[in-house]
Amino acid sequence: MKIRDIRITDPFWLHYRSIVRHEMIPYQWKVLNDEIDVRIERERDDPSIPNEKSHALENFRIAAGVHPGHHYGWVFQDSDVYKWLEAVAYVLMEEMDDALKQAADGVVDLIAAAQEEDGYLGTYFTIDEPDRKFKSLMDSHELYCAGHFMEAAAAYYEATGNLKALDTAEKLADYIERNLGPEGAFGYDGHEEVEIGLMKLYHVTGQERYLHLGTHFLRIRGTDEDFFGEQRKKDPGKKPLIRGLENFKRSYFQVHRPPVEQDTAEGHAVRLVYLCTAMADAAVSGGNRDMLEACRKIWRNIVDRRMYITGGIGSTVHGEAFTFDYDLPNDTMYCETCASVGLVFFASQMLRNESNGEYGDVMERALYNTVLSGTALDGKHFFYVNPLEVNPIASKLDPGKSHVKPVRPEWLGCACCPPNLARLIASIDRYIYTIKEDCILVNLFISSTVDLPVPDGNVRITQTTDYPESGRIHISVSSDTDHPQSLGIRIPGWSRSYKVTIDGKLLTGGYGSKTDVRPEQGYLYIKDLKGNHEIELELCMEPRLWRANPLVKEDIGKVALTRGPIVYCLEEIDNGNNLHLLALDPSSIPEEEKEDGELGHIIRINAKGAKIGKPEKDSLYLAAEEELPAKEARLSFIPYYTWGNRGINEMCVWVRSLT
Amino acid sequence: MKIRDIRITDPFWLHYRSIVRHEMIPYQWKVLNDEIDVRIERERDDPSIPNEKSHALENFRIAAGVHPGHHYGWVFQDSDVYKWLEAVAYVLMEEMDDALKQAADGVVDLIAAAQEEDGYLGTYFTIDEPDRKFKSLMDSHELYCAGHFMEAAAAYYEATGNLKALDTAEKLADYIERNLGPEGAFGYDGHEEVEIGLMKLYHVTGQERYLHLGTHFLRIRGTDEDFFGEQRKKDPGKKPLIRGLENFKRSYFQVHRPPVEQDTAEGHAVRLVYLCTAMADAAVSGGNRDMLEACRKIWRNIVDRRMYITGGIGSTVHGEAFTFDYDLPNDTMYCETCASVGLVFFASQMLRNESNGEYGDVMERALYNTVLSGTALDGKHFFYVNPLEVNPIASKLDPGKSHVKPVRPEWLGCACCPPNLARLIASIDRYIYTIKEDCILVNLFISSTVDLPVPDGNVRITQTTDYPESGRIHISVSSDTDHPQSLGIRIPGWSRSYKVTIDGKLLTGGYGSKTDVRPEQGYLYIKDLKGNHEIELELCMEPRLWRANPLVKEDIGKVALTRGPIVYCLEEIDNGNNLHLLALDPSSIPEEEKEDGELGHIIRINAKGAKIGKPEKDSLYLAAEEELPAKEARLSFIPYYTWGNRGINEMCVWVRSLT
Repeated sequence: MKIRDIRITDPFWLHYRSIVRHEMIPYQWKVLNDEIDVRIERERDDPSIPNEKSHALENFRIAAGVHPGHHYGWVFQDSDVYKWLEAVAYVLMEEMDDALKQAADGVVDLIAAAQEEDGYLGTYFTIDEPDRKFKSLMDSHELYCAGHFMEAAAAYYEATGNLKALDTAEKLADYIERNLGPEGAFGYDGHEEVEIGLMKLYHVTGQERYLHLGTHFLRIRGTDEDFFGEQRKKDPGKKPLIRGLENFKRSYFQVHRPPVEQDTAEGHAVRLVYLCTAMADAAVSGGNRDMLEACRKIWRNIVDRRMYITGGIGSTVHGEAFTFDYDLPNDTMYCETCASVGLVFFASQMLRNESNGEYGDVMERALYNTVLSGTALDGKHFFYVNPLEVNPIASKLDPGKSHVKPVRPEWLGCACCPPNLARLIASIDRYIYTIKEDCILVNLFISSTVDLPVPDGNVRITQTTDYPESGRIHISVSSDTDHPQSLGIRIPGWSRSYKVTIDGKLLTGGYGSKTDVRPEQGYLYIKDLKGNHEIELELCMEPRLWRANPLVKEDIGKVALTRGPIVYCLEEIDNGNNLHLLALDPSSIPEEEKEDGELGHIIRINAKGAKIGKPEKDSLYLAAEEELPAKEARLSFIPYYTWGNRGINEMCVWVRSLT
Repeated sequence: MKIRDIRITDPFWLHYRSIVRHEMIPYQWKVLNDEIDVRIERERDDPSIPNEKSHALENFRIAAGVHPGHHYGWVFQDSDVYKWLEAVAYVLMEEMDDALKQAADGVVDLIAAAQEEDGYLGTYFTIDEPDRKFKSLMDSHELYCAGHFMEAAAAYYEATGNLKALDTAEKLADYIERNLGPEGAFGYDGHEEVEIGLMKLYHVTGQERYLHLGTHFLRIRGTDEDFFGEQRKKDPGKKPLIRGLENFKRSYFQVHRPPVEQDTAEGHAVRLVYLCTAMADAAVSGGNRDMLEACRKIWRNIVDRRMYITGGIGSTVHGEAFTFDYDLPNDTMYCETCASVGLVFFASQMLRNESNGEYGDVMERALYNTVLSGTALDGKHFFYVNPLEVNPIASKLDPGKSHVKPVRPEWLGCACCPPNLARLIASIDRYIYTIKEDCILVNLFISSTVDLPVPDGNVRITQTTDYPESGRIHISVSSDTDHPQSLGIRIPGWSRSYKVTIDGKLLTGGYGSKTDVRPEQGYLYIKDLKGNHEIELELCMEPRLWRANPLVKEDIGKVALTRGPIVYCLEEIDNGNNLHLLALDPSSIPEEEKEDGELGHIIRINAKGAKIGKPEKDSLYLAAEEELPAKEARLSFIPYYTWGNRGINEMCVWVRSLT
């Protein structure tokens, strides 16, 4: 059963969705068309990264024969257009916009025109190196781009009924199947994504061969001795498509062993979560139990050992990758926006497999923190890297931190993140519920109304809440069938206590409550619902302090502050410079302060602590017996997702603890 | 007046000098000759770094026409041979060794044979790119190599009277003067060193034109708009001599402004201290006051803001460079052995300019810690990078730490450090005293006897001490002239108290002493010495704890332990893994323990503290109100210079402090 007719009425998310519709999509449209003068920054100091312009739509015009010229930008530049188109699809699903649809239809026409007769689609190779098609899959991103187009086409078809989009995607999928399917040559892409695209195509068309082709790629990956190396030897191309990629270890591409045999999160973080998203989908859609097993192990490794408190993943800029257990440096990490977007995808697919609130917890953690911090409040500046600690001087003068930007650039040379974030926010409604055969899971608390078709009628669920400002969520369920419904409400792991009433009667009161209803694996089940019911959930939203596991060297002696799903941080503008001199008194009671200002409507949290002062002697090394001067200080925290919106300044999430 | 006839009798240093003579020099000779099968490691993950073999002497044979073939290795590979030759010179000065002299004479003959008719010397260009001579000075290292040869030739001539070495060096200097001197083309080397070589040539030959040519290079440096860029445009060579160097900022080469206008330590650390060494020499030798001024400012910036407690410098692997004030990360830094060797050179030249004990303190700090840690105790394994904190898993799995080796490799692709360290240890006698017109400064405490010629006779100074094991130093002065002598004895900044007696009478007792004799700028002067005197110095060697300035973010809440000049560290083998879980109780009194074992004769220091245990819940994030379990622990410290000699394990210098 599918979700349809969902309407978000939530102030927090309507704001973001409005930004996507009114700011991001028009802005990104102009960028993709090279219509505005935008300062494109390299995501790190590397002159080989293109940053003169986007040129993404122009590449399609050239490939379609409309304009003369050469391809410009990354070999995967096409995917920027596809992700934009997918975001547009979700926006149009929410509310039709004729002008936007017209522009998007035009893009679909252009993509179709750029497709070759036989179904091949990929502007770089069509324009500049037709002889190298599928000859350098390690770095060509051809299937990666194809996957993004399939996702876009499926969504755009769902939104508008545009058959040309779907036909073009199917023609491309067929081309890929002929050339690289079970009957074609052995090969898979260095960057997973086509597997997700094929699953989406399967879900929209019902054609099992797309499920099988996606599963095929998941199955053959990493079964070779050295497929990329072999291809490289035979590649007629002279220059690498992406410089230096051949120096990475096999685990960078998750080909060190077959995915079903992997049990830790290795390599490029975005690739890994895309791989897992596809595996988890193939597990539930195609009955691949071994894939679910692998996903479970990799999930455990991420969540128990390799994930930042913000839901960020990827501990190093080198390969934008995972490193090793408990290695979570705060100021050199990567935490790419796309990786947290992918983590949301992965969690969502896992929820289809098993009803475990931890998937919802992590989804929410990534969403409200690293995903949202990927965009400025104006929707026109974007982070690729989401640090937990920033010193702007270090970003400028330490080349090892040149990737850590203290403010969001207008656009990035590698522009994967802005449209990825846009498509997730525009489709946020798809993550609120998971529909199971026997139950409806409420994963996210977002004011909305949804009509869910059930075998003999319809169930309408309406959420009314100002979450995450408060923890009060009103859920009304109205069913017109005789078929009883079960509702599983996620009780977040971060909530110290909670209370649930149904039709005014206390169902459970959390700690100390005498009722028997307890969450099972993070979901509180209300069973046998018929007719109309009013459910009230109240989560404890008191600010909380967290320590990292002591094996996380970087966070030892430090605490992080959260309120509800939101991680907080200190910024220099509120707390003075040298944030590391501050320490929080964990015994003081934090004070909440509502604020409507530059950062939008937020709850600021103030807490007591101390600040180390200037030592008497201005030496680099001081005798330890001489105490450092310290004075009382007030620490003022803001939500992490709002940082970097008030100019260049220091920021940190983990703060020293006085005790 | 010059130092001659110095004889080291010190057990601590005789050990190292014996290692240089009996291990390093024969070992390096075999490496330079490609005679032994040695595992050459790249200093960081970069496949463009040559590491198949040294080939350094073979390059000379090819350039001399003795063998056919091509140049192999770095463009500056010649300098490995020169530094070896210089170390041999010092070893032969200490005690003649006919076989070694014969080998070294052969090397001199080979170098002379590789020199071109006109005086040019540089095997890479002679063999493979004769048309590119002096055409790419940014990365060619031609003058850098020339400088090292001049240093070697001057020392070898002093040691053995070998005139061929000196003639070859002079012929080379003359060639450089004709081509790049004040009458030649504008140009200077990307890597400073020729300036030091020319000064040495001047000191040995008395020829002022070498002083002038060295000063010329110091004067013209950085006065251009973009000399390196201009040369690159005209360079007939197709490939860069060193990949990626052109991407560095001008400050990497210290050419962002003329050296006399520089006031902070910028760029590649070795280059900077070599530049300063030459400037400080030119200041005292040539009366260049503005150079002394610049050196003072740069010195202050290093010592007050940018130097590790170990005397290491260079906060980042990127450009092996300084970054910014107080940026002293412990596990990603560079702290190249060569940079600390250069810091000793710089300090020593500053002492010629001004009698300030801080120069001696820093010289001693670098020497006993980062310089000595550059070699394994066996003299056959070497560190290029000297970290203050190492996690072997991170070195293996975090590419950002691939340069941080947990044990010393047998040899390095870029083999600058091993012979640099060898030549410094072999010439350590030259750093003990600074001879001023009116005074003799005692900088280092090393058992030795020296005869100093004074206008009408000789002054013999004999030091007897087991320093740094104890702080008792006996100095006997015996003068056969009527000319009264002054002795300035360095009172180290780290010493909590000291006591000096002369001929059994208390001269000063440090804190609380009622006598008037006080150190002036770190030197305690004993004036008007005639005839024979016995001086006893007693320094307080109690272990001390230090904090870094709180602006050093990485060290906040931590302490470092020292005893005398020696910095201590924790190793996993003595303290278990996860060293960051340990915290030192600063109120506990550390216990000293003499030890003769794998680490040689050392004083181990044990102290009390606590270790954080495993939390009850094995989650990545834990509610802060749940206390982490901790238990008492004994922390066992060893001298920093001995770390990494017992296999791969964790190490750290800065330890968390319980209060």
